[in-house]
Amino acid sequence: MSVIQKKSKKEIILEEAAELFKNKGFSATSMRDLAEKVGVEAASLYHHIQSKEQLLWEICQQIAAQYLQELEKAEQSDLPAPMKIKNLIAAHIRIITGDVAAASVANEEWRHLEEPLYSEFQKMRKQYEKRFAAIIEAGIQEGQLRPINPKIALYTILSSFNWLQHWYRAGRDVDNKQLESDIVGLIMGGLER
Amino acid sequence: MSVIQKKSKKEIILEEAAELFKNKGFSATSMRDLAEKVGVEAASLYHHIQSKEQLLWEICQQIAAQYLQELEKAEQSDLPAPMKIKNLIAAHIRIITGDVAAASVANEEWRHLEEPLYSEFQKMRKQYEKRFAAIIEAGIQEGQLRPINPKIALYTILSSFNWLQHWYRAGRDVDNKQLESDIVGLIMGGLER
Repeated sequence: MSVIQKKSKKEIILEEAAELFKNKGFSATSMRDLAEKVGVEAASLYHHIQSKEQLLWEICQQIAAQYLQELEKAEQSDLPAPMKIKNLIAAHIRIITGDVAAASVANEEWRHLEEPLYSEFQKMRKQYEKRFAAIIEAGIQEGQLRPINPKIALYTILSSFNWLQHWYRAGRDVDNKQLESDIVGLIMGGLER
Repeated sequence: MSVIQKKSKKEIILEEAAELFKNKGFSATSMRDLAEKVGVEAASLYHHIQSKEQLLWEICQQIAAQYLQELEKAEQSDLPAPMKIKNLIAAHIRIITGDVAAASVANEEWRHLEEPLYSEFQKMRKQYEKRFAAIIEAGIQEGQLRPINPKIALYTILSSFNWLQHWYRAGRDVDNKQLESDIVGLIMGGLER
């Protein structure tokens, strides 16, 4: 989107909803809170969205789509496993720092989705984990990575940048390049043979 | 405690409270829920405890005391920094797997403490982080650890085993020794020169 293009009302609503869901939690956020942040009457929110849950779903989907795209890029490339993993870790950090509110909501607040959306999102998460673990396993089998339990490695990797959700904001005394190189270095140093 | 010694009512209440706070969240847990789990009338809970918040505080304190004890052990030892860090990581894993409900509550639900307890606990956490970071910094200065940002290293380390809070339960297809050696290996491999 070019800088002169105005954000749509829908985009503004999604942004403010992500901020509120992250800071107050999905359950504690009311449509009234959201209307106030957006600067409209609560009733008029419904011209743009169906429900609070629909907003949560859209935020989760937007973030999940980004992760999936990166995973597919890794799977389809001819890079060695450690490089695929390095790229995926960098992508995670970029997605989190790119929109820390939405990324945090997709990672924590998704649990408040109701059925069938809850199960659908859970399935997507499990699929993602399985495919990421398969890359780790391939790297171990090819002898490029140390022989550790791929599930332990996967969860340790995925957890290791979760603190960014709470900590990161633009203007911190650490720049994004250093964040990426330090975290990637720390994890890959332990993973690679 | 020997196996033949009976748990006190207070201990049972603390255990059930930790389970409920972890699974339902502190806010959503009522004293009625707790009474039902313990198997007593809600009113009689107050013979043993003052309030729901007091329970949360006691759970947080019990876990914090364990972390602090391990930190002091590390600080007072003559071991090189990497070995101190290795021991602290192993201690974290042991504390989490030793009482996954209480550890999870102390790490997540403490945010529901009210003032002045909230600020007191937050201060304890910050102190712990500062002293852990000082060990990392010493290791970097002595050339035993790679020169990465100590704060990034600290938060990455502390986050990296958070998944255990959600995932771990006795009888998983991974044993505690492997958990410890894989996670310690992964992190230390990336940290050490």
